[in-house]
Amino acid sequence: MIILVSNDDGIDSEGLVALEEALKNLGEVHTVAPDRVQNSMSHALTLHRPLRVHEAGPRRLAVDGTPTDCVKLALSGLIPVRPDLVVSGINKGPNLGDDIIYSGTVSAAIEGTLLGIPSIAVSLVSFRDFVFEAAAEFAAALAARVMEKGLPKGTLLNVNVPPEPKREMKGWKLTRMGKRHYKEEVVERVDPRGRKYYWIGGDDLGYAEEDGTDCVAVHEGYISVTPLHVDLTNHRFLSEVTPFTLRWP
Amino acid sequence: MIILVSNDDGIDSEGLVALEEALKNLGEVHTVAPDRVQNSMSHALTLHRPLRVHEAGPRRLAVDGTPTDCVKLALSGLIPVRPDLVVSGINKGPNLGDDIIYSGTVSAAIEGTLLGIPSIAVSLVSFRDFVFEAAAEFAAALAARVMEKGLPKGTLLNVNVPPEPKREMKGWKLTRMGKRHYKEEVVERVDPRGRKYYWIGGDDLGYAEEDGTDCVAVHEGYISVTPLHVDLTNHRFLSEVTPFTLRWP
Repeated sequence: MIILVSNDDGIDSEGLVALEEALKNLGEVHTVAPDRVQNSMSHALTLHRPLRVHEAGPRRLAVDGTPTDCVKLALSGLIPVRPDLVVSGINKGPNLGDDIIYSGTVSAAIEGTLLGIPSIAVSLVSFRDFVFEAAAEFAAALAARVMEKGLPKGTLLNVNVPPEPKREMKGWKLTRMGKRHYKEEVVERVDPRGRKYYWIGGDDLGYAEEDGTDCVAVHEGYISVTPLHVDLTNHRFLSEVTPFTLRWP
Repeated sequence: MIILVSNDDGIDSEGLVALEEALKNLGEVHTVAPDRVQNSMSHALTLHRPLRVHEAGPRRLAVDGTPTDCVKLALSGLIPVRPDLVVSGINKGPNLGDDIIYSGTVSAAIEGTLLGIPSIAVSLVSFRDFVFEAAAEFAAALAARVMEKGLPKGTLLNVNVPPEPKREMKGWKLTRMGKRHYKEEVVERVDPRGRKYYWIGGDDLGYAEEDGTDCVAVHEGYISVTPLHVDLTNHRFLSEVTPFTLRWP
């Protein structure tokens, strides 16, 4: 079994290393990851400039690009074999609810999916004192299951692991994507030369308390596994009884 | 009516100007757009550095960031009013099928949607000799209809206009997101100093010929309007008869 590992926290992240170690029991692990932190890069793809690659160890390559770049390069010949599985993470911080739209971790797994390979994104729901042990162990167990059973075409799994140690965890749940509440906050300040600048922030105001969502499962102490797909179509809108009408031309 | 206009081709794009002109008949247009080309930036958000803003004309602001940054800044007080509608475009080139995952144009509309405002993304399916007239006119007609009728919560419209002049167009169709075929191509070369570099390409190999998709509608000469939403959950996976099992811990 060949496993491609990537992330958005960069090649030096302890979360990446923990994931690599856990997956080595399942097969040959190849890592292609950004050479620096690439948080909130979403599915950005670098087309306007060339990319550089440097070796960061045996079967470990660092790219000066986005998570999506890394997976695309890896599958275009940068690693000598075609992987059976792509695993992205372990992200330092949650990728829950509609936040995943911004996530580089999830995007690496989406790119794997678009290129036809079963893919998993793994995140640790913590903001400090990261302990990756339970997340890495669950990721390996899930990866083994996915390699055995496969995933439906175009579907990836988005995993969020609560910060508790394994013995305090209740288990895992299949979930749907929830909705997070944010206060839109942009800080406006003046630089030392007297010119204005803006810095995007955003206070976390919690999440919609809807049963069955990733946010609620993690809050209750479960590992959340959300099946995602790359079809953004709102099919319900298409099948509405009173369709959207507009006379044109 | 207040309309926020953005794009990913940058503040100087003729597509943006054509859209602004067409929408001025409907209300007060405010533009907040990237100060340069931001193609394939997807939903990337700039959190690691401050953003600069400069005036590019009356009610026209340029930001040194991504399309998502522009919409977020605009709605956090950069423009003095809350828009009733966000329109992104007119993009120079298609945003069809799973390509929209990479699209900055679509992401500006997704950001508007996440922030609770009805949003539309508009693209011209052309690669040269861009004539924006029909696309701009249709965008304005659709925008008027959306402002009158609204959109379901969390839903945006992704519009792709064929390159033909209006008189040759057959009309428009509600569609679902199709699938494009690409050959993954990365060019490997050596720079003047003898070091390797990689450049992401990707030949277009057409699209899956499935009825009802955006790709097929545009190919047949129709304007495609695809309702998208921000829920990536694969609900069919969740309701499968034989669920995904894994014993853990």
